[in-house]
Amino acid sequence: MAVSLDLVKKLREMSGAGMMDCKHALEEAGGDIDKAFTILREKGIARASKRADRATGQGVVEAYLHSTSPDYPPQLGVLIEVNCETDFVAKGQEFRKLAKELALQVAGFGARWVSRDEVPDEVLVAEREVYEAKARQDGKPDQVIPRIVEGQVEDFLKHSCLLEQEYFREPGRTVQQFIAENISKLQENITVRRFTRFNIREN
Amino acid sequence: MAVSLDLVKKLREMSGAGMMDCKHALEEAGGDIDKAFTILREKGIARASKRADRATGQGVVEAYLHSTSPDYPPQLGVLIEVNCETDFVAKGQEFRKLAKELALQVAGFGARWVSRDEVPDEVLVAEREVYEAKARQDGKPDQVIPRIVEGQVEDFLKHSCLLEQEYFREPGRTVQQFIAENISKLQENITVRRFTRFNIREN
Repeated sequence: MAVSLDLVKKLREMSGAGMMDCKHALEEAGGDIDKAFTILREKGIARASKRADRATGQGVVEAYLHSTSPDYPPQLGVLIEVNCETDFVAKGQEFRKLAKELALQVAGFGARWVSRDEVPDEVLVAEREVYEAKARQDGKPDQVIPRIVEGQVEDFLKHSCLLEQEYFREPGRTVQQFIAENISKLQENITVRRFTRFNIREN
Repeated sequence: MAVSLDLVKKLREMSGAGMMDCKHALEEAGGDIDKAFTILREKGIARASKRADRATGQGVVEAYLHSTSPDYPPQLGVLIEVNCETDFVAKGQEFRKLAKELALQVAGFGARWVSRDEVPDEVLVAEREVYEAKARQDGKPDQVIPRIVEGQVEDFLKHSCLLEQEYFREPGRTVQQFIAENISKLQENITVRRFTRFNIREN
């Protein structure tokens, strides 16, 4: 089969292999770039680490560590990656300030996911089961239970997803709105790519 | 069924519910503490967040951020949690220094897991497949292929697992040995509980 030059170039970036090797691997893989990458690795042409070098935009990694008192080491920490479009914005003080502020929000308000589409289905299923059992236990009539459950799921999402949380410095506004304000200020799209929160006291 | 007092106490710590509620929930759950916790939640007696309050030892959370130049924001960050037995050791400068050093190791040498028993089976299966296909491609005789593959898997584990990596300041010694030295110095068990590494350039 004929493979597009774009695909060949992309595989080349991923693998660091030559154009012809990439073209042949893509032909062998029927145009499937991941399969082609594996073929190159098997041939010893691509290095596994190359895949990790793919650029995914600009941005900054920030951390926030929280100590309960000055003589105590941090027991809570957050690492966050915030992305933007250009290196010009990434280098600016304002963008970094935004990333720090978001790290602080995560530290203090314990978001578990960036947005609701990241919440695993099994988590929602388990939450729903608990809310439903609780509503039955409370003797709520059958016909209102779905509405009660959905309301509680909605609350759960608003508390667990960073973008939907209330921004701690401006009650009544969401983190999403705070980011949107920075987007219009910096004239560039901004996304929270990922974060992690470690608390010594939590599993 | 009769449930032990220890189990009742444990559930009480987890849930914040009263002794009798815990006892009844455990009886209903046939002694299964997780099931009993869910029963308490369904009854509205336990709060979901309580589960997260369970103490899991002492320790410190540290971060390391890496910038390629002073006028550039950090593009690489590590968050690490290191545990010890007592709050006395956790508060000491030496322990915190150890945690910082381990964060630096993760930043510079890109460990993906703490130890080899954390490496998911599917990762090992995929690595083995690549090494095997590569060996066949190179025309190695069938009978030596398993040995070649196992050697490469061993290399992969030594590079990907923090405890097995060479400690960057003391070539020839592993991170595990460096931690063991601190264990004997501080007279307390020390474990790396978890870490995360974000690199803007990596998926």
